[in-house]
Amino acid sequence: MSTWTPSASVSAFITLSDLSKSKTSGSHETAPLELISQAYSKGYNSVCLPLTTDAWRKRWTEMCLMSDSPHTGKHPRESRRESKLVSRDLTAEKKAEAWRANPCFEREEVTITRLDEAENVTVIVSEWLELDAEDDGIRCDAEIALQQELAYASYLNIHTAILPPPRNRDHVSSYARTVRACLQCAPYMSLAVRLPVYDTTSVSEPLPLSPSSSSSSLQSHSTPSTPRLVVSNSTESLNRSSASPAHLEAHIDAAWEMWDLIRSICDYSTRLALALDLTPPLPNSPGVLSKWAAEAVRYIFLPSSTFIANTKGYPVLPKPTQNFIRDSMTHRPNIIISGASSGLHLRGGEDAYSQYVRHLERTSPVVQAAEKVGTVENFAQGYQDYLQAPLQPLMDNLQSITYQTFEQDPVKYQSYEEAIHKALMEWPRPGKIVVCVAGAGRGPLVARCLSAVNRSKRNVHIYAIEKNPNAFVTLQNRQRTEWRDRVQLLFGDMRTIEVPEKADILVSELLGSFGDNELSPECLDGAMRFLKPQGISIPSSYTAHLAPLSSSKLYNEARAIKDEKSLETPYVVMFQAVNLLSGEGPGPSGLCGPQVQECWEFEHPRKSSVLNTQGLPPTNSHNTRSAKLRFHIPHAGALHGLAGYFEAVLYGNIGLSIHPQRKEQISKDMLSWFPLFFPFKEPLYLPSNSELQVSIWRLTNERQVWYEWHAEAFLGALPSIVVSGSQALPPSLLSSPTVGVPSPLIDAIDLQPRHSSVLLRDAATERSVAGLVKIGHTSLHNAGGRSSWIGL
Amino acid sequence: MSTWTPSASVSAFITLSDLSKSKTSGSHETAPLELISQAYSKGYNSVCLPLTTDAWRKRWTEMCLMSDSPHTGKHPRESRRESKLVSRDLTAEKKAEAWRANPCFEREEVTITRLDEAENVTVIVSEWLELDAEDDGIRCDAEIALQQELAYASYLNIHTAILPPPRNRDHVSSYARTVRACLQCAPYMSLAVRLPVYDTTSVSEPLPLSPSSSSSSLQSHSTPSTPRLVVSNSTESLNRSSASPAHLEAHIDAAWEMWDLIRSICDYSTRLALALDLTPPLPNSPGVLSKWAAEAVRYIFLPSSTFIANTKGYPVLPKPTQNFIRDSMTHRPNIIISGASSGLHLRGGEDAYSQYVRHLERTSPVVQAAEKVGTVENFAQGYQDYLQAPLQPLMDNLQSITYQTFEQDPVKYQSYEEAIHKALMEWPRPGKIVVCVAGAGRGPLVARCLSAVNRSKRNVHIYAIEKNPNAFVTLQNRQRTEWRDRVQLLFGDMRTIEVPEKADILVSELLGSFGDNELSPECLDGAMRFLKPQGISIPSSYTAHLAPLSSSKLYNEARAIKDEKSLETPYVVMFQAVNLLSGEGPGPSGLCGPQVQECWEFEHPRKSSVLNTQGLPPTNSHNTRSAKLRFHIPHAGALHGLAGYFEAVLYGNIGLSIHPQRKEQISKDMLSWFPLFFPFKEPLYLPSNSELQVSIWRLTNERQVWYEWHAEAFLGALPSIVVSGSQALPPSLLSSPTVGVPSPLIDAIDLQPRHSSVLLRDAATERSVAGLVKIGHTSLHNAGGRSSWIGL
Repeated sequence: MSTWTPSASVSAFITLSDLSKSKTSGSHETAPLELISQAYSKGYNSVCLPLTTDAWRKRWTEMCLMSDSPHTGKHPRESRRESKLVSRDLTAEKKAEAWRANPCFEREEVTITRLDEAENVTVIVSEWLELDAEDDGIRCDAEIALQQELAYASYLNIHTAILPPPRNRDHVSSYARTVRACLQCAPYMSLAVRLPVYDTTSVSEPLPLSPSSSSSSLQSHSTPSTPRLVVSNSTESLNRSSASPAHLEAHIDAAWEMWDLIRSICDYSTRLALALDLTPPLPNSPGVLSKWAAEAVRYIFLPSSTFIANTKGYPVLPKPTQNFIRDSMTHRPNIIISGASSGLHLRGGEDAYSQYVRHLERTSPVVQAAEKVGTVENFAQGYQDYLQAPLQPLMDNLQSITYQTFEQDPVKYQSYEEAIHKALMEWPRPGKIVVCVAGAGRGPLVARCLSAVNRSKRNVHIYAIEKNPNAFVTLQNRQRTEWRDRVQLLFGDMRTIEVPEKADILVSELLGSFGDNELSPECLDGAMRFLKPQGISIPSSYTAHLAPLSSSKLYNEARAIKDEKSLETPYVVMFQAVNLLSGEGPGPSGLCGPQVQECWEFEHPRKSSVLNTQGLPPTNSHNTRSAKLRFHIPHAGALHGLAGYFEAVLYGNIGLSIHPQRKEQISKDMLSWFPLFFPFKEPLYLPSNSELQVSIWRLTNERQVWYEWHAEAFLGALPSIVVSGSQALPPSLLSSPTVGVPSPLIDAIDLQPRHSSVLLRDAATERSVAGLVKIGHTSLHNAGGRSSWIGL
Repeated sequence: MSTWTPSASVSAFITLSDLSKSKTSGSHETAPLELISQAYSKGYNSVCLPLTTDAWRKRWTEMCLMSDSPHTGKHPRESRRESKLVSRDLTAEKKAEAWRANPCFEREEVTITRLDEAENVTVIVSEWLELDAEDDGIRCDAEIALQQELAYASYLNIHTAILPPPRNRDHVSSYARTVRACLQCAPYMSLAVRLPVYDTTSVSEPLPLSPSSSSSSLQSHSTPSTPRLVVSNSTESLNRSSASPAHLEAHIDAAWEMWDLIRSICDYSTRLALALDLTPPLPNSPGVLSKWAAEAVRYIFLPSSTFIANTKGYPVLPKPTQNFIRDSMTHRPNIIISGASSGLHLRGGEDAYSQYVRHLERTSPVVQAAEKVGTVENFAQGYQDYLQAPLQPLMDNLQSITYQTFEQDPVKYQSYEEAIHKALMEWPRPGKIVVCVAGAGRGPLVARCLSAVNRSKRNVHIYAIEKNPNAFVTLQNRQRTEWRDRVQLLFGDMRTIEVPEKADILVSELLGSFGDNELSPECLDGAMRFLKPQGISIPSSYTAHLAPLSSSKLYNEARAIKDEKSLETPYVVMFQAVNLLSGEGPGPSGLCGPQVQECWEFEHPRKSSVLNTQGLPPTNSHNTRSAKLRFHIPHAGALHGLAGYFEAVLYGNIGLSIHPQRKEQISKDMLSWFPLFFPFKEPLYLPSNSELQVSIWRLTNERQVWYEWHAEAFLGALPSIVVSGSQALPPSLLSSPTVGVPSPLIDAIDLQPRHSSVLLRDAATERSVAGLVKIGHTSLHNAGGRSSWIGL
């Protein structure tokens, strides 16, 4: 059964030259119709073509560009506007003013004129328009021309236009401002910013993967012949004669940074997408490319020149490009293939390129996981990046259908049975063992207890407590029909109910995606009343984990909820178009921990405590927690929120985990929990090699439990203010959370705690504690979404 | 006439020791009443006293702090919460739980109990409470105690409480979160964060200005005896054995940075203020202290130990402290003097301290400027930091009262008369000169024209054009009673009116605070129709200028306007509690300009242009402008907006200017224009020695003119990615706007263009162009406040 609708569409790129060659041939009324029909017959899903012709370029250039270079060292203000009339005749300026007052095309300046020519077509706006030119006047005229082209495309009912790439870092803000204005003027149109994954002009030495041919039709587009200057701070700092992987990464970060500025200025408009141009060869380091997973990559440009020939002469893609396209299938992109008919490769013909792309789709891990029954990806179809309010089973009584969904989990209940079995087998005292299931729901844990008891051959009495009156009816039915006197049912809240005898083993499943977020600690505080002093709790402990996350999709989803608290509440989400921004430590301070870090832990039973006459803790103060975590951010990114995970020890080395790096080893294919997403109100820009310090609190008052979270960004200080401070290292730094706490799960499955011991040595002896420069912070989030914990 | 209400109040600080000594003496019912009465009789305006006694500290310490150090290298999670019960008895924990469930004072734990004791009193919350302790449990209990103290203070109708200083940079976010929670729980109370201007414990070597006595009652407060750890990234990077001015500046920036984090987490609550503690000696570099001008400094702590003895033995303040307090008078602070009765100085007695503070107030430049008739400061009383929508005289017809206000300006009209006179005297051709006043209003410029004509003895005919029908009645009255046939009135809009003959000299006053923001360029485009080809426009040109600005006051004022466009519109404001964040270049890139930078210029008449049959430009495209400016930010600050200024050349070397560094020389005491404030939606954090790149656009469509603005922040790149690029310096960088355009005004008054030639050389030869790391940006502002420019 295939649940993945193959929705990466493949488009043919039709060039002006194709259009002019086609004019005389074919059975269709017009050249565009002829070429579009041919593309469909070759199996393409759609086509992509330029909107304007060379005639338009010629007229615009004559009207709006001066003959000599506008940049001759004059004050910019004087450049074109005030000097042009000296060097060119007034006629051109008169024409330009008439055009500016009333922008309008001539017939031969556009490629298409009919609705049927435009159907399903993505147009490319005049790519020679320099929306980020140095010169004010040229920029202003380019904006008028762009608005004119979009108005014409809109008239033809075209839904998406691809914009010229930004070319000049110093004026990207002008480019972005123009795009924003266009989004406002064309309210039914989507725009895509064409963006080469990096600026090839700034990396002069050919890279190992560079294809031998460099004359594809698309490559000429990225070097327009209009006067241009590339002034980029980030590329300026790179030595032109070297193109080492680190330098390439800096270039890719710089390209992303331009996109981030553009979409930020456009306020993350959902009508603004990316057309990522894969003409430049990709590096073999996936980390730097993972940032595109978090962005709205709706188009991928793939010129035939990007393909290399395999041993038989068929076109295939270099390994990094293969992997990138496979991973990009999450975006269901439109892949635009150009130059397929140029005969660049010996074998396979024109169809080989699109067939190869289809092959990549079929072999994409994303697609394969979605198609495989039993995986979370398959289970979660339709729920990717969909925000759900976390369940509050203490406050709300769940519906039977909800119980049923979670009871389908093939892994979780098996793990519980193993844990109970192991606990029974290792129980040191002979005689009857009392097991109590606290929060029995519809009975799945009770059934697993009975299986474990059968296997263990121990003498066991089971109590099952449930506070949901509706589920209690189901329990009664199962008891009468299945369990009989082996199980005794008790109706009530575990925090107040009277239990006939104390239990040796207490079994509960009160965990949320963040461990304690469904108030397991508070509930089990009450259940401790009826656990014997040497009794066992299953689970015996659980931990909450966080990682910083980027996702323009989730940011927009959270903003779209029209409730002022929408950005103050964590959501349960099956992540897809996201990117974890953190890498492994040690980061600028030398004190950063791993990619995903532990916040806090709860252990059951509590070791010692003050109790009131009802056997309950007088306050909930002991269940407050806080964590301050330091994350290394290797590549520039926009922080949109935090990803929350949990890991639980049920008993011994048996656990449950949704920790992205450990779940496969601990509880593979467990379905019950998606991660938590803690949103931020405003994106926080994080530069390459920065450090993010996250504070998170679990807070409580007499009625409620809630989380608050906050983040601060730092860069390493410049050397002038960095002084070695290794001898002054305060003790609190040595006890940093990066020092792994021994975990029975990790020991059992032989997973090394990452970096921890190395880090400690680093911090104390080899590395000095670098000074940090604060560069930004988020708002505090917040007192909004509070879960009531007195659910009575 | 004194217009400055002397509202810096001076408070006496009453200590616990004062209270216990006073218990047996005096004629008042209670010790607090006795001491308060004494303080009033000594001339203090109010008193400040601790809310709690040592008894409370003792009980809280016994309940909530463990006996052995909580930081013995264990994992923080294990520190107090889980280990305390091992080392201390359960009784203390039981008491603590009972207290946490029901926080309540004993009588002897508080200093005051009666409403009359609390009247007009500012209380100091227990300063030993560590809201930013390393240990979760201690922090949690400190928060409960703080809430308890504030609830008690609120019960006594106390309006302001001063909080303990933040002490631990690593947990300032926890401190701030607690303060935020307290602001929500005590909705009628104001809180002040006590903040030493820097952390003295991190600067070990005594500074030159350090007073010999170090045992004041206040100094002991900044080193509480509860267990503490100071872990600060920024202080960590400073070598403890040196306290050079640069290091001290870094410490002061670090103290401000803590405050910035606290008030940001508290969302700039207007009920949260600063109590700045001047115990540490101030450095002699005013730049680093100017940031406090932009903050809500409501209290200043001034212990008697800060005073030094003058040659006669009287207490005086060191020069930097004197200057700082004089400048702080803009905040009208409450200055709290402690230790006045401790006899630290030989002469003057207890009153000498408060008398000295009053002396500083009287000699404050702020106070003196406000008291001097004829200054802008005096004229603007009551308008400081008050946001006004800019006038739109083209769209709206002004009221007579508005004209009258602006006609009071003693400088502007004098300058106009001089400019007209000079133009007449230098007019090269003999015979009749035609002068046209475009936009005559109620006639002040016409009157000045007539004076200039009288002085010049030239043969002049004057036309006066006005489009406001109401003002035109006033003009008719003046013509009939004063001017007679020397002036010919014309009613209509200068963009369309027919004028009987062309003018030699066109006089207009259409300038706004930003030069072109009242649409002078658009109006004068129309008036050019009736200016002779060799004619003169007065003004002949004007420029717009910007500087980045910090002001928590203005940020809050702009947010408080309940209109979604409130942060999309520039405001006219008389700045007071503001700080310009920029310093003089060259900054991290080596390309930054001066503190205030020019955006663009308009010149009249336009040199050459295409006109339609009506003599008007076919489009307004030529009046679009944009600027990209680079500012060096020497000290950490929060960017809240941009300050906008203008400078105009009327004729020759006669001008008008509100440029903060040039207005004194060009048009001192001119009253007509306050600066413009361009707000940002969210504050942007700027680290020390960063670079701010500001983009601003003047945009137009067929109906409107508006501005958009945006900013990006950068830091210098770490050396690993900095490569010298001086030989690759692109031409556009050499033509950076930092290279001063020759100005006739500057030349005339012999003001050197700051840094410009130096900078050019720096950039091209001596300094390499450093790589920059992008660290943040603002939203785009925006298409909101548009001025209609077709006012017909």
